[in-house]
Amino acid sequence: MAFVSLFLFACGEKKTDIQGSVPQQTYEWKLVTAWPKNFPGLGRAPETFAKNVERMSNGRLKIKVYGEGELVPGFEVFDAVSGGTAQMGHAAAYYWKGKIPAAQMFTAIPFGMNAQEMNGWFHYGGGIELWREMYEPFGLIPFAGGNTGVQLAGWFKKEINSLDDMKGLKMRMPGLGGEVLKKVGGIPVALTGGDLFTSLQSGAIDATEWVGPYNDLAFGLYKAADYYYYSGWHEPGAALEFIVNKASYEALPEDLQVIIEVATRAANQDMLDEYTARNNEAMQTLMNKHHVVMRPLPADVMQGLHKASIEVMEEHAATDPLFNKVYQSYKKFQAKVTEYHQISEFEYYKNRSMVSQ
Amino acid sequence: MAFVSLFLFACGEKKTDIQGSVPQQTYEWKLVTAWPKNFPGLGRAPETFAKNVERMSNGRLKIKVYGEGELVPGFEVFDAVSGGTAQMGHAAAYYWKGKIPAAQMFTAIPFGMNAQEMNGWFHYGGGIELWREMYEPFGLIPFAGGNTGVQLAGWFKKEINSLDDMKGLKMRMPGLGGEVLKKVGGIPVALTGGDLFTSLQSGAIDATEWVGPYNDLAFGLYKAADYYYYSGWHEPGAALEFIVNKASYEALPEDLQVIIEVATRAANQDMLDEYTARNNEAMQTLMNKHHVVMRPLPADVMQGLHKASIEVMEEHAATDPLFNKVYQSYKKFQAKVTEYHQISEFEYYKNRSMVSQ
Repeated sequence: MAFVSLFLFACGEKKTDIQGSVPQQTYEWKLVTAWPKNFPGLGRAPETFAKNVERMSNGRLKIKVYGEGELVPGFEVFDAVSGGTAQMGHAAAYYWKGKIPAAQMFTAIPFGMNAQEMNGWFHYGGGIELWREMYEPFGLIPFAGGNTGVQLAGWFKKEINSLDDMKGLKMRMPGLGGEVLKKVGGIPVALTGGDLFTSLQSGAIDATEWVGPYNDLAFGLYKAADYYYYSGWHEPGAALEFIVNKASYEALPEDLQVIIEVATRAANQDMLDEYTARNNEAMQTLMNKHHVVMRPLPADVMQGLHKASIEVMEEHAATDPLFNKVYQSYKKFQAKVTEYHQISEFEYYKNRSMVSQ
Repeated sequence: MAFVSLFLFACGEKKTDIQGSVPQQTYEWKLVTAWPKNFPGLGRAPETFAKNVERMSNGRLKIKVYGEGELVPGFEVFDAVSGGTAQMGHAAAYYWKGKIPAAQMFTAIPFGMNAQEMNGWFHYGGGIELWREMYEPFGLIPFAGGNTGVQLAGWFKKEINSLDDMKGLKMRMPGLGGEVLKKVGGIPVALTGGDLFTSLQSGAIDATEWVGPYNDLAFGLYKAADYYYYSGWHEPGAALEFIVNKASYEALPEDLQVIIEVATRAANQDMLDEYTARNNEAMQTLMNKHHVVMRPLPADVMQGLHKASIEVMEEHAATDPLFNKVYQSYKKFQAKVTEYHQISEFEYYKNRSMVSQ
């Protein structure tokens, strides 16, 4: 039998010993995250991923998931995995903007692509290749790690009636969205999720974005702000990331490498499915139980933010060659996919809405 | 070492022998499909799936993929897997409507949910559980197996200016869409993909839908029809399916079962990513190189089709308890997700389109 087995798998990596069985080495990995342990959506993805990997590998690769701060703070996930403190991380690429401004584009661009479009770019538009190239010098391999869908514009203590109302507004708004806010006269404030409620309640900030109803309800933001604006613009499909320490990955046998790759892909979709299913119930609770006023942002605000967004992107691209390289790829893909979605996804939403009235 | 290994994995299914290695049984499976071998999108998903499974299992589970007609005809995939001729299949649930009318809802419902919404329903809204229950008597386990995104309304030899123009129209339109077409006075014709071009060219049919630019271009349909209507209504997010013979699945060790489950999930997303990235280029080729006229269907046509769609669905639900059970779950999920997507995904498409003008 041994000879037959060897023959059948001659082109693979499998090493068959003379008993026709494979030596089993086991691995124990740490996965650090930027979210509270088991946080809905964001925090569930790495848990499901780790469970799947352990089961697919028959226990040969066990991955222990750490919540934010359990092993390292959320903003240190990148360094922890790069330095080998943990073999994997789950976070959002725009958290590393201080190190690599261009990384922000792998999370979201204001007025950019939504979840479906981002996934098309990552896997069939060259996005993931650019991402890998960018993280290579840090000894990291990135994988798409889920998506929240369109994020809402956020919670405001006062009504927004025109672009002028954004002037002087102290708002928690990370990444490129924050730079856009600044350009229209607002004051972006950097805060982690856990500090949002008290900062909003105390008046340290006038407004904050977070994710959408599913996550925002859990933080109780409705108790501290009267208005919830839904016209999403700053993160139209925020992508999360899995990062893997390259040396640790390359030390694995090929089957475990593929198991990680395929399990991240499944987790990438699973998170979006969870948000898609859960946001509406949370929105109903916010509106009906907590009497939250939900409304769109005025057209002139959206136009002003869009104009500022283009300026922010072009300024980065003009001064940072790496930023420019990713931006050109992103922009080209977005232009094409938008053209098609105009007559397919958008057209369908429009028609379905029209006939249902 | 043997004792240590046993201890570490005491709660798993792993059987460790005294050399600390695992006996390797290998499996060779057949996967039959309803598509030509390696057909873009639809046909690539099972190939990628099979390759991933073989690599993740280190060659322990090899799956050979058969194109339509290579082992069994496309419309016999269900029976072939149910009867054990093949261990797996890749097709669309609405092909089995003669056997189970309710199965059609696991592919698409006219004016129903798009890809993102279908995936939410499958994995977080009870959809997959209903699907498994439905296939259980046939000894089959279904998994979501990809999605094409919004399918376009199709190719027409004459212009459609009002609902009256649909009367007497002989059109290839499968599943529930065909029943809706009949209700507005059209004549639905059943044809497999390979027969579309000649039937349209010869005038045996006046119109046909297929998928969207990426697949339609390959079939050369533009040579046989002057008008391409883009207002999708009959398959707003056509879901494909993987089916697995239950006895074969249960005969696998647990790690290979999970490998199949996770690999289908990854394939499910991968197909949508491919369509998202590829449709626009094909559309540009159709418009610019082949001078295809693309236009929306008039509002009264959409309204008439929507009214007829509701009637078709309610009629099925009134007479078929299984249909009703799935329809109620689908309808409830759609109502909720539509409410949220109205202010998130749809609102974002609207705003992005507005500010870009």
